[in-house]
Amino acid sequence: MRLWRDTHEHDEGTQRIGAFSDGVYAIAITLLVIEIGVPAVSSEESLGTALRDLWPGYFAYILSFVTIGISWANHHSFFKMFTRSDHHFLMLNVLFLMCIAFLPFPTAVLGEYLDNDSQRQTAVVFYTAGRLAPATAWLTVWAYGNWHGLVDEDLHPNYTRLLTLQYSATVGLYVLAVALAFWQPYAALAIIVGITGLYFLPPRPRRYISGEMEDLI
Amino acid sequence: MRLWRDTHEHDEGTQRIGAFSDGVYAIAITLLVIEIGVPAVSSEESLGTALRDLWPGYFAYILSFVTIGISWANHHSFFKMFTRSDHHFLMLNVLFLMCIAFLPFPTAVLGEYLDNDSQRQTAVVFYTAGRLAPATAWLTVWAYGNWHGLVDEDLHPNYTRLLTLQYSATVGLYVLAVALAFWQPYAALAIIVGITGLYFLPPRPRRYISGEMEDLI
Amino acid sequence: MRLWRDTHEHDEGTQRIGAFSDGVYAIAITLLVIEIGVPAVSSEESLGTALRDLWPGYFAYILSFVTIGISWANHHSFFKMFTRSDHHFLMLNVLFLMCIAFLPFPTAVLGEYLDNDSQRQTAVVFYTAGRLAPATAWLTVWAYGNWHGLVDEDLHPNYTRLLTLQYSATVGLYVLAVALAFWQPYAALAIIVGITGLYFLPPRPRRYISGEMEDLI
Amino acid sequence: MRLWRDTHEHDEGTQRIGAFSDGVYAIAITLLVIEIGVPAVSSEESLGTALRDLWPGYFAYILSFVTIGISWANHHSFFKMFTRSDHHFLMLNVLFLMCIAFLPFPTAVLGEYLDNDSQRQTAVVFYTAGRLAPATAWLTVWAYGNWHGLVDEDLHPNYTRLLTLQYSATVGLYVLAVALAFWQPYAALAIIVGITGLYFLPPRPRRYISGEMEDLI
Repeated sequence: MRLWRDTHEHDEGTQRIGAFSDGVYAIAITLLVIEIGVPAVSSEESLGTALRDLWPGYFAYILSFVTIGISWANHHSFFKMFTRSDHHFLMLNVLFLMCIAFLPFPTAVLGEYLDNDSQRQTAVVFYTAGRLAPATAWLTVWAYGNWHGLVDEDLHPNYTRLLTLQYSATVGLYVLAVALAFWQPYAALAIIVGITGLYFLPPRPRRYISGEMEDLI
Repeated sequence: MRLWRDTHEHDEGTQRIGAFSDGVYAIAITLLVIEIGVPAVSSEESLGTALRDLWPGYFAYILSFVTIGISWANHHSFFKMFTRSDHHFLMLNVLFLMCIAFLPFPTAVLGEYLDNDSQRQTAVVFYTAGRLAPATAWLTVWAYGNWHGLVDEDLHPNYTRLLTLQYSATVGLYVLAVALAFWQPYAALAIIVGITGLYFLPPRPRRYISGEMEDLI
Repeated sequence: MRLWRDTHEHDEGTQRIGAFSDGVYAIAITLLVIEIGVPAVSSEESLGTALRDLWPGYFAYILSFVTIGISWANHHSFFKMFTRSDHHFLMLNVLFLMCIAFLPFPTAVLGEYLDNDSQRQTAVVFYTAGRLAPATAWLTVWAYGNWHGLVDEDLHPNYTRLLTLQYSATVGLYVLAVALAFWQPYAALAIIVGITGLYFLPPRPRRYISGEMEDLI
Repeated sequence: MRLWRDTHEHDEGTQRIGAFSDGVYAIAITLLVIEIGVPAVSSEESLGTALRDLWPGYFAYILSFVTIGISWANHHSFFKMFTRSDHHFLMLNVLFLMCIAFLPFPTAVLGEYLDNDSQRQTAVVFYTAGRLAPATAWLTVWAYGNWHGLVDEDLHPNYTRLLTLQYSATVGLYVLAVALAFWQPYAALAIIVGITGLYFLPPRPRRYISGEMEDLI
């Protein structure tokens, strides 16, 4: 395992997991639509009404699509901060991808049961927990990378500390959303939408010890 | 965010979204077939008749496949005109991809209900609206890129004006098709087929201020 | 549209459609398994019997997987023979991919109805026709490329003539299989298996005017 | 077919099958979630209970995701050991990928019937056999490559012998698991989990004749 200082060169391990991740992201995001089933209506019923009644499915589709899209965008610049990798780092990333690839399922559950008064609470708890999982895995990957010196040593310590704080706060908010979902499902969803909205904003530029800043796009 | 003048070099952000888009396109286009379900017939019924009755499914498959294929081909040369990118540009592209990745659903609805006299109108309205969405997102990406100076400054202003006109006209035709679908579904579909046919023609070569022309393939 | 003589450099158009094709191939081949549905058996019935009864599904899966795999391998070396491309060439390739991406559907029909005495004939006709389609599209792409001078001019004319013969013969055999399927479904399937087996053999090395030979792998 | 000694250069054939394999891996791993169907519950039933009852589906998802993820990671470094390729090698790899792409099906069967007392045995036999298939194909690819001199000649013979032993032992353990599954399904699953766990550990560094070692990541 060689050490690279050049920010444009990466350990081959991080490149490979990066390419594989891009594939999984692209597939998971495109599979989301499969879960919105075509409604079966007879000639007497209204297809229009049936399509309108699918609004929770559209809502869940949009929410998860935007989330996976943002996560994909961030994942790329996230990986650029690791200049080395090892076997456990690779495996932790497989576990992270497992959480991302799982998202279509809680999304489908939310889409199916959000407008069902007796099942809404369960569906939202399940969805928020499904969102908590990749956030926790992301934090774990970050913590592992920091602990084992895989992170670019030229990054400013204040910047890495800030990221640790941000990732931890995100996990904290998701935990809050899961807890809230047990008695206020819509408030929990509002938190989820809020987190997604915050991540939709432009990320902070990367800061180096040298004082250099690098925009993330 | 650096500025590149060399048309073969791009901002890393546009390259990344380009590769991701290719993935989403390839998956969305290949998922279309999944929506044509195998008909369930008993030994007494005719499988031949059942397969023939799926013609709206085949029609919808071909129409959407060709559309996504053309959009993919155009998307590539579209992206070559942007020499810079920023966070909002990236996010607008995620929204555009959300519309492309959604297409299998209206395609499935059209395939299921096109030959149903009482549901045809709704199915066609839904499908044309599903086609309007990515066209509008495309125009938005283009408008944003122009407004924020992300477009290659060496392109001839007449050429970029022409594209603005073309993208706006496409959106206008789709709006017309959606409106028409409410009382003449087949006429609306004819417009959709017509737009697809027009985009099947070779695109105009890119024109530069220097007088240079570049074929788009 | 520039002309390249160097066999390692390609027109950008052929490279792009090549990468997109690889994506569509990889997705279509991996989607095949989705069409084998998990059998629903009660606790009194035997899951073992139900899984055994799915043999036509496994057979169809293997036959189509090997076919798409071989087609992918050949497609790559096929594309290496084109040193130029144009808009219609690109669009013909989109139509070819449409036929490849459609294969999971006739595969699913064959897997569902091959062991149904009253539906076998229809299922096999449909499957063989589904195999005829990409073979015909492939021949069309080849004929178009030859007609419009997109093929590498350094290839030996005997070699290109041989390929024209081979592709035409393949289409002929598929037409025969479709016709035969109307009264001898199993014989038609045997022809299909035979064609697949022939293509499983190592392809003839590419022959150049210079006398050079190049193995295809 | 040229011979490369430089470990960073590969025969084009191995690169192509490598890229195609990455695609199939990424798609197969992401399709796993599709097989966990959203439970259909009425307003009187508990969605929470229904989601809990899906635990065999989650277990099968995790087990197969981790397995495919590890296999992907190993496949990459596996391919780096082959410095040449030929047509049969390519075709054997297509067959190997056929086994990998098939995994979502036995995974779905296991997820559906693991908690069904009368079907558990069949489901576990089917799943373990589904795991045996790619392990056997992997060993076959390796044996073929060794037999036909496609393997990097700079690798230390002790290292290649060790790998032959390891791959054979893995196949042997899977055969044992299949046999055991007929009367002790849970014990067979424990062996499967154990093999997965062993492969989760860091792989042995590659050893060369020159004495050089190369970490696999």
